Amino acid sequence: VPRAVKPLLVPPPALPPGSTVLAADLGASNVRTALVDAAGVIAHRYATHTDPADPVGSLLACLRRTADAARTAGAGPVGVAVAALGPLDLTVGALERESTLLPGTELVAITGPVAAATGLPVVLERDTVVAALGEAGYGAARGVADFLYLTVSTGIGGAVVCGGRVLTGAHGLAGEVGHFPVDLAGPACGCGLTGCLEVLAAGSGIAAAGGQDARAVTAAAAAGEPAAVAVLQRARAAFAAALVGLVNAYDPALVVVGGSIARGQGDLLLGPAREAVRRHAYGRAARSVPVVPAALGDDAGLAGGAPLAAARLQP
Amino acid sequence: VPRAVKPLLVPPPALPPGSTVLAADLGASNVRTALVDAAGVIAHRYATHTDPADPVGSLLACLRRTADAARTAGAGPVGVAVAALGPLDLTVGALERESTLLPGTELVAITGPVAAATGLPVVLERDTVVAALGEAGYGAARGVADFLYLTVSTGIGGAVVCGGRVLTGAHGLAGEVGHFPVDLAGPACGCGLTGCLEVLAAGSGIAAAGGQDARAVTAAAAAGEPAAVAVLQRARAAFAAALVGLVNAYDPALVVVGGSIARGQGDLLLGPAREAVRRHAYGRAARSVPVVPAALGDDAGLAGGAPLAAARLQP
Repeated sequence: VPRAVKPLLVPPPALPPGSTVLAADLGASNVRTALVDAAGVIAHRYATHTDPADPVGSLLACLRRTADAARTAGAGPVGVAVAALGPLDLTVGALERESTLLPGTELVAITGPVAAATGLPVVLERDTVVAALGEAGYGAARGVADFLYLTVSTGIGGAVVCGGRVLTGAHGLAGEVGHFPVDLAGPACGCGLTGCLEVLAAGSGIAAAGGQDARAVTAAAAAGEPAAVAVLQRARAAFAAALVGLVNAYDPALVVVGGSIARGQGDLLLGPAREAVRRHAYGRAARSVPVVPAALGDDAGLAGGAPLAAARLQP
Repeated sequence: VPRAVKPLLVPPPALPPGSTVLAADLGASNVRTALVDAAGVIAHRYATHTDPADPVGSLLACLRRTADAARTAGAGPVGVAVAALGPLDLTVGALERESTLLPGTELVAITGPVAAATGLPVVLERDTVVAALGEAGYGAARGVADFLYLTVSTGIGGAVVCGGRVLTGAHGLAGEVGHFPVDLAGPACGCGLTGCLEVLAAGSGIAAAGGQDARAVTAAAAAGEPAAVAVLQRARAAFAAALVGLVNAYDPALVVVGGSIARGQGDLLLGPAREAVRRHAYGRAARSVPVVPAALGDDAGLAGGAPLAAARLQP
């Protein structure tokens, strides 16, 4: 059985003291870049919107600004760690541009163009995996060998750490939990299924159901507008039920929830999810699993670039 | 982080040539016992119905018959490998009798009574994990380091092998995929959620929805009775959608489906599931994942007792 990637271990190895890495986080809506040091400290931060027609162009433009600033400051990064939304083909360092979030069907090379633009070694990983490394190294999952990291943002994704190893699966795709169907009578998801967690509870799904962007739907719900309230109630119920299913599937000791939509809702999202786990997870031990917000927020996917580079770019 | 159990590796270690193990498979409906040798060959097979009020009593009665027959034949088994429906508390060797399938709330000791009755060392594991070891050692998953084993029987459960290791999770509960909610508007499941895969597609769920046992519902559907057809259509749609979600969650290289309900339906169940994976799994590699029937049938949970004993009872 060929394996696309070797497992990443938790706690991850550290970069040598004093060394730095260029980190990039390519999401469906935004690109972020920064210089990250061995302690996870972030500097020279830039961000831009992701151009759906040219996501790697957005990535390179943003990365160039961080690289220039780092060079001016005298930093000599050991490489580039790129976190990107899935699905990725890690065997060729590319994004499969087939998701609902960046429509298209072709394979978009990432590793090659970034290496050419920077002259540095490049490592690519799924954004959720990198964020999980960040939370494991510097955030809410420090010292925990079995945890589930979820992001609820424009999309929904996850990464799973089991027995101190990041679950890769056979092709580096494990943890794509946004496309778990939780409502057979639900709306169509871009993946082809109906009622996926993502189409019900992610920012993109909330926006589609609410007829305006997710932030506006949330504000309308807070003001008591019935249609918006219903959209968010459905989103939270779907998330709570799915979270029980994911606890049953992976049996983590901890669930860490990041992403802008999760952060915006706070305990309105996490409260019902915690209660559902406490009541309905399968097996006594599973019912006591804590569900906590990510400690690093949007920085997790950048900070995790340091341990990712330490694991994959070190000789 | 305390770990309840050490990981089981695939391919599993073998028992020494010539040695045997007493194997038991405690299910919601039936108990099976047999003597298994190092090559997975099964002898002295007995079976009985599971008494819901005293499942361990059923287990011991059946095991005693196999043990007596083995002794008469001159076998000296090295220990007892017990596969049992979950949820289990492996730290104390007990069944948490809280599931919908064996109602009750107490913890029922298994390891202790079996050791007392046989005078042999005992290892307990979830039935799906043992069946996965059986399929890995002697069946459909030989040579595969990343696979998902599912059983569709009275209940639905699973076991996951990732990178040559059985996924245990933090408490030995990983892979309890029967309690993944796939229909938020579906029927109530005994676990407290609504529309779990198990309540829609397992034998118990088919029987509850069809008003007669699952075999009779299947026969009625084959005869074209509309209500029975609808029950099975819903079951197969739920299974197909859930299977896509599980492929997305675990990223296996192979899915092996066992259990009496799956065997009874054959390609009526697996065909739509294969097609759904081929069309909707997330990421190109995931869409080519084969979905095959278990090779060992009901024997997987017995045959897997040999590698389980080899892994856990050897010094």
